[in-house]
Amino acid sequence: MLLERLQAYDRSDIYPFHMPGHKRQLELGADAYHLDITEVEGFDNLHHVQGILQEEQARLARYAGAKKSFFLVNGSTCGILAAISATVSRGGKLLMARNSHKAAYHALFLRQLTAHYVYPRISSFDIQGAIEPEQIAQALEEDPGIEAVYVTSPTYDGVVSDIETIANIVHSFGKILIVDEAHGAHFGLHPAFPRSAIRCGADIVIQSVHKTLPAFTQSAVLHLCSDRIRTEVLEEFLDIYESSSPSYVLMAGMSRLVPFLQKEGEVHFTALAENLRQFYEKTGNLCHLHVIREEDFDKTVAFARDPSKILISTRDCNINGRQLYDRLLEEYHLQLEMCSGEYVTALCSLMDRAEGFERLASALFAIDGTLERKQAPEQGFVARMYREREQVCPISEALESAQVTVTLETSVGRISGEYVYLYPPGIPILVPGERIDAGFACDVREMKARAMIPEGMRDKQAEFIQVL
Amino acid sequence: MLLERLQAYDRSDIYPFHMPGHKRQLELGADAYHLDITEVEGFDNLHHVQGILQEEQARLARYAGAKKSFFLVNGSTCGILAAISATVSRGGKLLMARNSHKAAYHALFLRQLTAHYVYPRISSFDIQGAIEPEQIAQALEEDPGIEAVYVTSPTYDGVVSDIETIANIVHSFGKILIVDEAHGAHFGLHPAFPRSAIRCGADIVIQSVHKTLPAFTQSAVLHLCSDRIRTEVLEEFLDIYESSSPSYVLMAGMSRLVPFLQKEGEVHFTALAENLRQFYEKTGNLCHLHVIREEDFDKTVAFARDPSKILISTRDCNINGRQLYDRLLEEYHLQLEMCSGEYVTALCSLMDRAEGFERLASALFAIDGTLERKQAPEQGFVARMYREREQVCPISEALESAQVTVTLETSVGRISGEYVYLYPPGIPILVPGERIDAGFACDVREMKARAMIPEGMRDKQAEFIQVL
Repeated sequence: MLLERLQAYDRSDIYPFHMPGHKRQLELGADAYHLDITEVEGFDNLHHVQGILQEEQARLARYAGAKKSFFLVNGSTCGILAAISATVSRGGKLLMARNSHKAAYHALFLRQLTAHYVYPRISSFDIQGAIEPEQIAQALEEDPGIEAVYVTSPTYDGVVSDIETIANIVHSFGKILIVDEAHGAHFGLHPAFPRSAIRCGADIVIQSVHKTLPAFTQSAVLHLCSDRIRTEVLEEFLDIYESSSPSYVLMAGMSRLVPFLQKEGEVHFTALAENLRQFYEKTGNLCHLHVIREEDFDKTVAFARDPSKILISTRDCNINGRQLYDRLLEEYHLQLEMCSGEYVTALCSLMDRAEGFERLASALFAIDGTLERKQAPEQGFVARMYREREQVCPISEALESAQVTVTLETSVGRISGEYVYLYPPGIPILVPGERIDAGFACDVREMKARAMIPEGMRDKQAEFIQVL
Repeated sequence: MLLERLQAYDRSDIYPFHMPGHKRQLELGADAYHLDITEVEGFDNLHHVQGILQEEQARLARYAGAKKSFFLVNGSTCGILAAISATVSRGGKLLMARNSHKAAYHALFLRQLTAHYVYPRISSFDIQGAIEPEQIAQALEEDPGIEAVYVTSPTYDGVVSDIETIANIVHSFGKILIVDEAHGAHFGLHPAFPRSAIRCGADIVIQSVHKTLPAFTQSAVLHLCSDRIRTEVLEEFLDIYESSSPSYVLMAGMSRLVPFLQKEGEVHFTALAENLRQFYEKTGNLCHLHVIREEDFDKTVAFARDPSKILISTRDCNINGRQLYDRLLEEYHLQLEMCSGEYVTALCSLMDRAEGFERLASALFAIDGTLERKQAPEQGFVARMYREREQVCPISEALESAQVTVTLETSVGRISGEYVYLYPPGIPILVPGERIDAGFACDVREMKARAMIPEGMRDKQAEFIQVL
C-alpha cells in the first residue's frame, strides 16, 4: 500500500535531493487528519476570501512584494492555466518560450490560442539557456497580434532570463508578461540567489512553493504584480481550474511559510549558501564528472544561474545521465531530482543539511574515480531533442482533427496529433500540430535506449504515433 | 495563522457534522511532511501510471466495480471538467440537470458547449428533487444534437435519481451518461444506503471520497464504468486539469481507503446505520422542527434518499435555516454542513460517533422547546431561488461578450454576464447567458437578509451586476 511504502521511504537512509523543498524536515504538530476540515465558520472560503485566508494571502503579498497573492492548491498548473486564460482572449496569440511546461501548452489548447514560439539557445553543456530580451523584442515587433508573453525563469536547470529587460520591452509594446517562476519560489529571499520576477516588473508570477520552499507538494502561489490585469478575471479562471474543496492541510502548509521565513529563513538560507559554496569549491577538481557553475554559461545563454540546482555533467566521460543517476541512488542512496541525457540534477533547498552535501560530494568523487574520459565525445541530447520543430497548426486544431495511427518510421512529414515529452522536465519535445521530421523516430529510440519513458503518446510502448 | 487556528479547532469541543468524512478520527501514523514526496523511483507518476499508483487504482476499480478508476487530487472539480470535456465535442451539446455544481457550468464555458437543461421538481419541504427518467427521455427525443447527459445523484440534500432507468434511456439513444456522485462515495457499501451509479449502468461516475468516506479534503475518484468512452481521451483531459505535482499525502489517504473499508467498513457502516435509525426515531416527535425522512418525499421527487444527510426543516416554525444553524453552533457547539432558507444539513459518515447523534438530538429538542409555530407559513426559498430561468445564449458567448455594470434594479430583462450562487451548495442560481427576471433583485436582497453571501458576482456587495 502506498501509505506503508511512504512510511518505509521516510525511515530509509535515502537522502532527498529532490522536491518538495521541506525535505521532510518540518512538522505539522498534529496528525494531518486532525487539521483537515472544510469551509466551516471562521475558516473562510478560498474561492471567496474575506477572513483568515484573505489575511494569509495579504501577508504573503506584502512579504513577496506583490499587489495580490493567491494560494493555489492545484499546483502551478492551475496558476499557469488561469494566467494565460485571463490575459489572452479566446483564439488569441501568446508569445511563449518553447521550453515551457506542458501546462502552458494545455492553456493554448483549452483557449484555442496560437503560439508564437521563441527558442532558447543551448549551452555547451547541453542545457537549455535563457530567453534573450532581443528575441522578445523581435517577436513583438513582427507580430502585433500577440497579447501576452510567457517565459519560464528559472528553468528546471536554474537558468534565469533577464526579466527586468524583458518586462520593459513587453510593457513598451503594451503587453502583459507572465513569468513561470515555479522553480524560483526562493528567489529574492537571500543575496546568494537571484532576484524574483516579482521585483523585476513581471505582471503575473507563478511559484511552486513546494519545489524550493518548505511547503507541501502541490502547493503553489500566484502573484499579481501590476494593475495591467483585471483581478476579477484572474479570480474567475482560478475558480474554474481549482478544486472547490481546497485542502486545509495544503493551505496550512502555505500559511506558515511567511512566519517561518521571517523567523528562520535567514539562518537556513545562509547555511544553504555556505553549504553550496563549499560543495562547488570541493567538487571543482573532479576529473571526469563536471559540476556546472555559473562561469560555464556565457551571459547570452544564462543571464543568471540558481546555484541551488546542482547540475552534474557526464559530457566528457563514459557514463550518461541516467547511469549516473542510477549509481547515485543504488550505491549511495542519494535520490536525485532528475536525469537528462548528459547530466543529473540535485535539487537543494534551505532545508537541506550539511550531511547531504557531504554525501553527494563523496559519492561523486568515488564514482569519478571509476570513470574514464569518453573516447568520442558524443553529445547534445537536449540540443537534439528540443530542436526547433515546424508549427503547422494550433494545438487545438491538431487535437480536434481526425487522426490516424502510424508507425514512427512512416510518420515522417506528417503533422503530430499528440505530445511527446519526458517527465521530468515535462517540456514537450513534440507538440500536436508540429511536423514530424526525419529524426523523430531516432529521438524516440534514443530516449528508450536511455530508459527514459516518452510520455504523452497514446501508445505506451511508443512504437506508434497519432498523426493528422 | 491558519495552522494554529486549525489546531485550536481540533482541540475544541465542536462536533463536526460536516465534511470531510474522516471526521478527524483517522491517523496518518507519521507527520504529513515526512510522507510528502514527489515522483521518485518506486513511487510512480499519477499522469503515467505503471507502478504502485496503477496497482492502487486497479484495486479501487475492482472494489468499486468499475472498469478503471482514477485518483483525483484536484477534487471532483477536475473529474467533472474532464468527464464533460472527454464526452462532448467542442461547441457540442450537453443535457444536464440545472441543479448541477458550478464545475459542470465551467466545463460548458471552457468547451463552448450549449446546455439543454432539465429542472428537478421541488419537494414540499423546499428541497430540490430527483431528475425523472421521463425528463431525460423527452429531452433526448426532442434534441438529437445532445452528445452526453450529466446528472447529480445524490444531491447535496441526499436525493437520489433513478440512475438505472436513466442509463437505459440514455444508452438506447446511443449517448453517454455521466453521474456526479460526489455526495455518494459511500453508496453501495452497506444495505442502509442506496446503490452506486457505478452498478446502475452509468458510463462515468465521479465521487468526492473526502465528502462521505475517510479521505482528505480535495480527494476524489473518477470511475470509468463502460467501454463507451475512450480511456485515452479521458486521461488526456485529466492530465490537463490536474496538477502535475500531485500530493502524495492526498494519494496516501486515497490508497488506504479500500483496505480500511474491507477491514473495518462493515462495523463502522453498521454503527452508522443504527445511529441514524435511532436518531430518526428519536426526533420523530419534535413539535416544530422537522427532521426530514424518506416518507416525506413522494417517488417522483426522490427515487431514493441518503439517510446520512440529515435535513432539519424549519418550514413550520418561527426560525429560518440560518438561525437554526447559528444556534446549533453557538449554543451547542455543533458545526453543521450547510444551511438553506428553511433547513439545515448535518452531514454524517461512517466515522461519526454515537456522541454526535446524541448531542444533535438533544440540541434539537432543546431548541424546539423554545420555538413557536409560524403564523403565516411563508415558504419556498429554494423554489424561488432555483426557479427556471430563460437561457438566451451559451455561457461562453455571454462571458466573452462586451459587458456593462448595472444596478440590480435596472437589470431586469438584461442578459446576465456572471454567475450568482450560494456556496454551499455551489449550484448557480443565475448563469451567464440567462435573462434576469423581475424577481432577481428581490432574490439577492433575500439572500443578504438571511446572511447568505451571493458569490460569483464581481461586486462583492452584490449591488451591481454585469450584463451583456
